[in-house]
Amino acid sequence: MTTATNAYEGMLKRTREIATLGSVGALLSWDQETYMPSGGGEARAEQGALIAKLRHERATAPELGDLIAQAEGEATEDLAKANVREAKRTYDKATKLPGDLVEELARTGSRAQDAWKGARADSDFKSFEPWLDTMMSLTRRKAECLFDSSGGGELYDALLDEYEPGATAAEVQSVFDPLRERLSGLIKDIADNGTPPDTTPLDIAVDEAKQHELGLFILGAMTFDLDAGRLDVTTHPFCSGLAPGDTRLTTRYKGERWTDSLYGTMHEAGHGLYEQGLPKSDRFGEPIANDTGLGTHESQSRMWENFVGRSAAFWSWFKPHLDRIAGPGLEQYSAQDLYRATNTAKPSYIRVEADEATYNLHVMLRFELERALLRGELSVADLPGAWNERFESMLGLQVPDDRRGCLQDVHWSFGLVGYFPTYTLGNLYAAQYWETIREQFPDLDGQIGRGELGPLREWLRDQIHTHGKVYRAAELCDRITGKPLASDPLLRHLEGKLRPIYGV
Amino acid sequence: MTTATNAYEGMLKRTREIATLGSVGALLSWDQETYMPSGGGEARAEQGALIAKLRHERATAPELGDLIAQAEGEATEDLAKANVREAKRTYDKATKLPGDLVEELARTGSRAQDAWKGARADSDFKSFEPWLDTMMSLTRRKAECLFDSSGGGELYDALLDEYEPGATAAEVQSVFDPLRERLSGLIKDIADNGTPPDTTPLDIAVDEAKQHELGLFILGAMTFDLDAGRLDVTTHPFCSGLAPGDTRLTTRYKGERWTDSLYGTMHEAGHGLYEQGLPKSDRFGEPIANDTGLGTHESQSRMWENFVGRSAAFWSWFKPHLDRIAGPGLEQYSAQDLYRATNTAKPSYIRVEADEATYNLHVMLRFELERALLRGELSVADLPGAWNERFESMLGLQVPDDRRGCLQDVHWSFGLVGYFPTYTLGNLYAAQYWETIREQFPDLDGQIGRGELGPLREWLRDQIHTHGKVYRAAELCDRITGKPLASDPLLRHLEGKLRPIYGV
Repeated sequence: MTTATNAYEGMLKRTREIATLGSVGALLSWDQETYMPSGGGEARAEQGALIAKLRHERATAPELGDLIAQAEGEATEDLAKANVREAKRTYDKATKLPGDLVEELARTGSRAQDAWKGARADSDFKSFEPWLDTMMSLTRRKAECLFDSSGGGELYDALLDEYEPGATAAEVQSVFDPLRERLSGLIKDIADNGTPPDTTPLDIAVDEAKQHELGLFILGAMTFDLDAGRLDVTTHPFCSGLAPGDTRLTTRYKGERWTDSLYGTMHEAGHGLYEQGLPKSDRFGEPIANDTGLGTHESQSRMWENFVGRSAAFWSWFKPHLDRIAGPGLEQYSAQDLYRATNTAKPSYIRVEADEATYNLHVMLRFELERALLRGELSVADLPGAWNERFESMLGLQVPDDRRGCLQDVHWSFGLVGYFPTYTLGNLYAAQYWETIREQFPDLDGQIGRGELGPLREWLRDQIHTHGKVYRAAELCDRITGKPLASDPLLRHLEGKLRPIYGV
Repeated sequence: MTTATNAYEGMLKRTREIATLGSVGALLSWDQETYMPSGGGEARAEQGALIAKLRHERATAPELGDLIAQAEGEATEDLAKANVREAKRTYDKATKLPGDLVEELARTGSRAQDAWKGARADSDFKSFEPWLDTMMSLTRRKAECLFDSSGGGELYDALLDEYEPGATAAEVQSVFDPLRERLSGLIKDIADNGTPPDTTPLDIAVDEAKQHELGLFILGAMTFDLDAGRLDVTTHPFCSGLAPGDTRLTTRYKGERWTDSLYGTMHEAGHGLYEQGLPKSDRFGEPIANDTGLGTHESQSRMWENFVGRSAAFWSWFKPHLDRIAGPGLEQYSAQDLYRATNTAKPSYIRVEADEATYNLHVMLRFELERALLRGELSVADLPGAWNERFESMLGLQVPDDRRGCLQDVHWSFGLVGYFPTYTLGNLYAAQYWETIREQFPDLDGQIGRGELGPLREWLRDQIHTHGKVYRAAELCDRITGKPLASDPLLRHLEGKLRPIYGV
């Protein structure tokens, strides 16, 4: 018994050290994106590589494996069991990958990413093709190392599991298929028969400093704790759960519509609230103190961005604050005008610029293609053709060039396969949770309409955040909503909002 | 021969890794002072402690000692020899201190610092006395571990050597003694017979944003590379040579006169230019890529702050830019008015608020007292009395309370003994270098008067910065000025400036 406790404590001592090194690495990254002068880039690469090396050494140390094995038979409490389970999962993954493969993925991935940048700029798929081919081979090797065939399934599952632990491609497909079909129908109906809302309010210019003030105001309303976090400006917005008590968000204003910045901030703050709600303050470095997966993480950002931020209730509350903070220019529009303007559904080429509805079609396209690539059912050479064909059938647009087609995303260039589906899983989870929230908060619209967002945040914290990685995403969904993940709630949400706006 | 090269390269590989960990620690500190939210403090302490531990393990690794020993007999080039010498010096120091002493100094020092804060606030020396007594005992133990008696000297030398490598207390005293005597005389003469300049221009309020713009403008003129550095705002200004290509300065505006902020920025930028001029871009992590000591570092900050920034030539160039950037309020004063207002000499209680001249008396007082404490010639209980007595004899003021007396500085509370003298060594080196610069730049005032500060920066880089730690401070001074460090140049500088201003 003493030995067991010692092994468990010894295991946690090591996971804490690994997590602390991870948090140091997170600061190196955050600083690089925010305040590091350009001249510091080379040294930053050295610093990052050293911290990553020290972290990897510890994450694959045989002593850690021994401690996990000892702790495994002995843990009795649920939380301890979950900690051991997650420590083992991470350790197995880390030790299953040969060092030379990790290195080659990093080195080739970095060069392939450069090649992708050039290829995208010139819309020249041919120059990127050999790089993508190599990266797909390396990624397949990685999947083969990680894949456990004993439970059935396919290679893709091993990659998906990195981002959405426990999920399988078949499960994802079974939810995506009906979504894809009905969503395509909705989009087509809107395109053919709908009357688009007036989006001119989005074109009003709002001063950068005032946009920042709006962002800080909305963070306050969302009860994001600014004593335990920040909001800065970067080229690409992100949220870094850097350390306990230290969650940093970024947004951007340049070249963005003011609503893009506002929703960008709300999106990252949704991630940030999840980070602030994880049980890190007392359990930092324990495996269960982490998020349960990217789908659930994204469900939080999407919920605040789309389910709260694009609702009529939100605009009725927010509009007077907008007029007060942003100054003249927008007072000519009503809350209803803004609600309509921020809820469009119109096929476009670029995923990151897509609206709430069509976005999911972009994601599902990528899921299908990367799965086919990994299975060998699709060759890299045939990717552009397959992309363009499916894109037209799903979104009704002919892709004019690969820059606006299969070259638009960075992910595949450095081997990020299995990541895309988590974006739409996030929307699906958000919608399903939202229906449960509606049941439990009969006055939800009233609360949002008064800017009382604290109770919603409390609910999310109690139901989701505080559990960290104890439950898998699917398990959590079942516990909270009483049902497995399905496509109906998201479809109901989109139909219920878009049909009245477009009059279809 | 091959073995030798391998040992030398192996040694450098290790010093580079240690330096990289040091640079990571520097970012943790910088971020803590600038942008970290308050909630991140506890995690930051963990991160810092872990990086410090990893660094210490590497700095004291027996394998490093073996590599240094092997490299020692084999290095033939001057730079290689200097690298081995410095690696050995650092390794010996690190391994001479027992781990428990290092830990106790850190732990007790942290608590003693808290006790000091309370004692200073209440001007209550008695409550701090036992803490200072313990810290002095621990510091004496540290000195005993580090002290090499074979070369003569005294315990204090071992502490001084941490900050000013190669210097001894006796040498410092031999320069300080004449400075102290003649400077006291000058201050007394000014106090008794001088007519103080009008300092009302310093009381004009300048908007914070405009002060920041002034700061960035002066950094540009000083040719501080902002692509390889930054200027931020902190409670206590500092310069962090964080990594190659990444030197970060801070300043403050709140509660400061605009000239205090301006000179604070120039001071830190002087440190920053030294950091940017060190041979870090190609030799980062080699021992010789570091500064040669704090006295020389301070000579660079003091030179820009006092010898450039408080000169009549500077004000004649800067005044129109000041009027342009700062806006109305200061145009009623002439460049000559500002030159006079920024060159006062008036005894006061607080070191960090002291003027260029009296500052050195504050420093020498501390040097004498800390040396007596370490020798056991002065007991901690008698410190306030000794402080007040010497203060009156040196500066002609009666100390009203310990808050404005021996409790004002944080240094001793965490065992920083041997550090103070480097402040005045900096002024002395700056003055002596300045006389050589004057000889080599016959049109120095003309250049400064036209804002052409690049050639001066080039000279400092070639003569001082680029040599890193190859030469000791005293050696560098001898090479550049042809003479050992003396008090005459600083006295000539102060007399030559202050006597005409005060008419004495």
